[in-house]
Amino acid sequence: MPSILVVNPNSSSSVSDTLKEVLRPPAEFDYDYFTGPLGGPLQIDSVTTEITSAANCLPTLIPLLDNYDGFLVACYSDHPLVHCLKEHTTKPVLGIFQASVLHSLALGGKFAIVTTVKIWEVLLSEAVRAFLGSETLFAGTFSTGLGVLELHDASPEVVSQRIGEAALKAVQNGATAICLGCAGMAGMEEAISKAVGDKIRVVDGVVAGVEILVGLIRSGHK
Amino acid sequence: MPSILVVNPNSSSSVSDTLKEVLRPPAEFDYDYFTGPLGGPLQIDSVTTEITSAANCLPTLIPLLDNYDGFLVACYSDHPLVHCLKEHTTKPVLGIFQASVLHSLALGGKFAIVTTVKIWEVLLSEAVRAFLGSETLFAGTFSTGLGVLELHDASPEVVSQRIGEAALKAVQNGATAICLGCAGMAGMEEAISKAVGDKIRVVDGVVAGVEILVGLIRSGHK
Amino acid sequence: MPSILVVNPNSSSSVSDTLKEVLRPPAEFDYDYFTGPLGGPLQIDSVTTEITSAANCLPTLIPLLDNYDGFLVACYSDHPLVHCLKEHTTKPVLGIFQASVLHSLALGGKFAIVTTVKIWEVLLSEAVRAFLGSETLFAGTFSTGLGVLELHDASPEVVSQRIGEAALKAVQNGATAICLGCAGMAGMEEAISKAVGDKIRVVDGVVAGVEILVGLIRSGHK
Amino acid sequence: MPSILVVNPNSSSSVSDTLKEVLRPPAEFDYDYFTGPLGGPLQIDSVTTEITSAANCLPTLIPLLDNYDGFLVACYSDHPLVHCLKEHTTKPVLGIFQASVLHSLALGGKFAIVTTVKIWEVLLSEAVRAFLGSETLFAGTFSTGLGVLELHDASPEVVSQRIGEAALKAVQNGATAICLGCAGMAGMEEAISKAVGDKIRVVDGVVAGVEILVGLIRSGHK
Amino acid sequence: MPSILVVNPNSSSSVSDTLKEVLRPPAEFDYDYFTGPLGGPLQIDSVTTEITSAANCLPTLIPLLDNYDGFLVACYSDHPLVHCLKEHTTKPVLGIFQASVLHSLALGGKFAIVTTVKIWEVLLSEAVRAFLGSETLFAGTFSTGLGVLELHDASPEVVSQRIGEAALKAVQNGATAICLGCAGMAGMEEAISKAVGDKIRVVDGVVAGVEILVGLIRSGHK
Amino acid sequence: MPSILVVNPNSSSSVSDTLKEVLRPPAEFDYDYFTGPLGGPLQIDSVTTEITSAANCLPTLIPLLDNYDGFLVACYSDHPLVHCLKEHTTKPVLGIFQASVLHSLALGGKFAIVTTVKIWEVLLSEAVRAFLGSETLFAGTFSTGLGVLELHDASPEVVSQRIGEAALKAVQNGATAICLGCAGMAGMEEAISKAVGDKIRVVDGVVAGVEILVGLIRSGHK
Repeated sequence: MPSILVVNPNSSSSVSDTLKEVLRPPAEFDYDYFTGPLGGPLQIDSVTTEITSAANCLPTLIPLLDNYDGFLVACYSDHPLVHCLKEHTTKPVLGIFQASVLHSLALGGKFAIVTTVKIWEVLLSEAVRAFLGSETLFAGTFSTGLGVLELHDASPEVVSQRIGEAALKAVQNGATAICLGCAGMAGMEEAISKAVGDKIRVVDGVVAGVEILVGLIRSGHK
Repeated sequence: MPSILVVNPNSSSSVSDTLKEVLRPPAEFDYDYFTGPLGGPLQIDSVTTEITSAANCLPTLIPLLDNYDGFLVACYSDHPLVHCLKEHTTKPVLGIFQASVLHSLALGGKFAIVTTVKIWEVLLSEAVRAFLGSETLFAGTFSTGLGVLELHDASPEVVSQRIGEAALKAVQNGATAICLGCAGMAGMEEAISKAVGDKIRVVDGVVAGVEILVGLIRSGHK
Repeated sequence: MPSILVVNPNSSSSVSDTLKEVLRPPAEFDYDYFTGPLGGPLQIDSVTTEITSAANCLPTLIPLLDNYDGFLVACYSDHPLVHCLKEHTTKPVLGIFQASVLHSLALGGKFAIVTTVKIWEVLLSEAVRAFLGSETLFAGTFSTGLGVLELHDASPEVVSQRIGEAALKAVQNGATAICLGCAGMAGMEEAISKAVGDKIRVVDGVVAGVEILVGLIRSGHK
Repeated sequence: MPSILVVNPNSSSSVSDTLKEVLRPPAEFDYDYFTGPLGGPLQIDSVTTEITSAANCLPTLIPLLDNYDGFLVACYSDHPLVHCLKEHTTKPVLGIFQASVLHSLALGGKFAIVTTVKIWEVLLSEAVRAFLGSETLFAGTFSTGLGVLELHDASPEVVSQRIGEAALKAVQNGATAICLGCAGMAGMEEAISKAVGDKIRVVDGVVAGVEILVGLIRSGHK
Repeated sequence: MPSILVVNPNSSSSVSDTLKEVLRPPAEFDYDYFTGPLGGPLQIDSVTTEITSAANCLPTLIPLLDNYDGFLVACYSDHPLVHCLKEHTTKPVLGIFQASVLHSLALGGKFAIVTTVKIWEVLLSEAVRAFLGSETLFAGTFSTGLGVLELHDASPEVVSQRIGEAALKAVQNGATAICLGCAGMAGMEEAISKAVGDKIRVVDGVVAGVEILVGLIRSGHK
Repeated sequence: MPSILVVNPNSSSSVSDTLKEVLRPPAEFDYDYFTGPLGGPLQIDSVTTEITSAANCLPTLIPLLDNYDGFLVACYSDHPLVHCLKEHTTKPVLGIFQASVLHSLALGGKFAIVTTVKIWEVLLSEAVRAFLGSETLFAGTFSTGLGVLELHDASPEVVSQRIGEAALKAVQNGATAICLGCAGMAGMEEAISKAVGDKIRVVDGVVAGVEILVGLIRSGHK
């Protein structure tokens, strides 16, 4: 049975646990989960933690490459692990950022990203340019001001309101699809739909990522 | 059970028959097939036939939109039916051109298109710009000089040689993935791999298309 | 005497009548008018009606190509008839959208489009990219919220006010030229000039279109 | 009767004489000719001579602005006079480079420029980017190696051959229209058509320029 | 001892005097100053004065090219002298506009320009595109509405306030570095820092320009 | 006395020794050198080694940030250390790739990169897009096929020939400046000049990098 490894590059197993709860493999597929070994960053909120989390995961991950048919890097960024793993295997490797962009393009119109804190506004614009070669179809990154931890610690009302406000700005800027710009936003689609209506697509990169990998594997890419 | 309608917008049922043979739905999914009603063009090789095939299909297709969960337009072009159907349903609609580009992006590197005749070189460059907003990741369209019918009537050696030559030019131009630029090229992956080696990805937009639609439907887009 | 066919691709002869009133051929030139045959859409307000109007006109239009020296497609969009007709004649074929962009570029600065309803904001941005290869010189599309019919049925005060507001936004966004983004806006230049002053150019694509065709024909293109 | 001033910014009256012979105003229009005052450069083949020719013409030209309805700057470059004159009059001002690009866009496809010497390859690429915002529709500048004077002094066979070779490279690079990239190439259309066939458009910016100005004036721009 | 000529292309020696006061050559380098000869424009605020100032300076400047090792054109624009001088010497020639962009890129993030009057908003956008090939890293030009002379004649409070307001808009538009968009703004860094905080870089193109030239000369470019 | 730390992110002290020999600080400046701690990669030839070298250096480098006034990352790539260090200090941080691009832009024309092995062709194109936002001014990366070690082990004739061939292709592709695309190419300017003549600029990013940092520090950036 083909299987996909979902890689959480930070060292917080609680994030991996959430992913396990959200994802449901299709018949004939299996998903497995990887958490960054202890000693790496607990959350990724800078280029520095992108780099150190990648370097922290690589020695443990490389020996696992033979065991799986596809790999999803579950950090919403142009995470360096995606590029590193492709140097060590020809099997499909995808990041959740790239996956969310691909599903957005498949749905059509312009896409935006709703994310946590301001630093991602610059980094994700760069990531879009690196992935698509231009920002033509990109309606921008809109930060809520809530960090990853605050997303879970703040009251649900505050979280919903902030996410809704960011989504509204995205739509006013022309977005017809909104990507959840943080692995920790899984399950927060409703806050967006309540704010902007259900004609606006909400794309969860984690879900999009495993689905695209399943499709690539079923198409024969190995 | 969710089902996908594969739309062959020309009026040649033999093309639809070939698609039926190539595609295998995953468990819990069903594929159905549609051929352009008699009176439309038998093959699509110009903007004019793109337009007339779309207009020919629309009256019959629109009443079917309620019966399916996703729609694949199986003409390798920026076919107008994709845009028209999106005006009549919110369900996922995808063309095989766009699908091949999405799978190429997911696999990484630069992609090229190997196609039939010269007219597509301009039309597909425009299609890439329309879909991605730039041609940055596009290594070009390379025509074999063989029309759709010749692909099937010419000797297999000639076909393989022409496709191989076009693929080689694509790789020399920087392509790491090559899209089969014609629905009628399904099954011709080997000719490419023989010419350029198996490190170069070959992407069949028909296969990519149904897989992406399955993923979108499984992700909840309706 | 060289003559130009002005093609109204929808099936409303009243639109063609308006064009006849507005246009004045120069000495030694003749203009003739074509209306979409009955059965096609009465107005064009979607990709679907672009496609069906094109397919509706083609069988009647193609036999007329020998009789004229140039063709103007009088629908403010990247109308497919422009591309189709070019496949059937080498004589100059132009759309009023493209014509308005060319006159704007000739006048210099940045151009914007004032149009009817919101759907055109996305479609006309795509049209600009398709025509010029980038949106660098484009200050955007600004919709009035009034459909084609409302433009004629609403009170002149309301129409003027809405057009003026849209034009003002265009100028605040950097436009130095404003294109009338609908064949039905012919004659509404004054509403714009009243709102934004007469330093801002107003470009009517219908007028621009016949003038450019006359110039191409006089330059020997056939 | 509306009239257009054709401005030859260099100080060689022979160039102006050639223009006079080539151009034929339409009924109800008049063309007049201006040559750069003595003391300016005799030919323009560098940024330096662009600048000095512009500065040389300005004092004499500005007092003439009231006497004409449109102005054509007849140097095939992004000549600074075009921009300067626009600061002194709101009447239409156009350069022959820009005019040739506009007629090429009106005709469709990709355009290239066949020109004299190598320096123009860089300058005209910059000019295209400055005018259109991108080089997407531009198939490049192809120099013949013959300077302006050599165009007239060399044997017609040599001139035809060099122009033909440059045109052929342009077509191989995707051009469907070729602009004569030098005011002194007026009348050399045939050399190109002989080399690349008559399906390729040849655009003379001098002719295109007066025709576009006539159209702008007839459209009411003043 | 290598020496750099700082060229003030306008004919106001007071501007050159200010530059002399601001600049301090490093050990082993010498700076010299050039003012446009009498008869040229006293300030540069249009394409016309760019052109006439360049033409006015050239005859006097060219004989000086042998005496210096690098040249800084101290007008904040895509001043034509930069391009002209490069045609007469292989030694490094730089404009203060280009220098400010280079230091901004070296510092990272997005840069904006705070300038005098509105005309520069269009001209400097064009200048960025001409210099970098795109406006991707450019957060825009923000004019204060104060002309060069007003910068010095208005009360310091008004000047500070206007510059501060423009800088604030630049930062809200994403700028992390702000270029002083006028040679006459030398010394006004503080007004910006007071308005937007000292995390935002302020780049003075005059200072940047001589430093880059020193670096190019020390690197062996001659 | 201000000082600059030259960071060699790989763990080969011989590379650092070469840099020490090549660089000469200007009066009133001091340069110091850092080599990646043992355990990191000995050479950087992939995204993986970029990442692991950065992670390897960071813990040792961060405590040193207070001791210096500027930092040069001496690996010819879009090395992640540049971005990481900027998150830990506001002092100027530059990579030698970016430095070579900045000096190329200052010199004018189009630049190309001559480098070691094929993998860099894709990575450096991406790096240019990331740094400038487009590849408009970039004439491409040309690999010699010689790895870093071969550059020093192969016979000087072979090295010169390969570098010369790559440089020639760069010039034929429009380059007027050629960047040495590897820290280990310091001192190989002559091989290029011999192949392409001394009108083509050769830019050494290591030299350019310290010079630009000196200029930024002298301009007050800290």
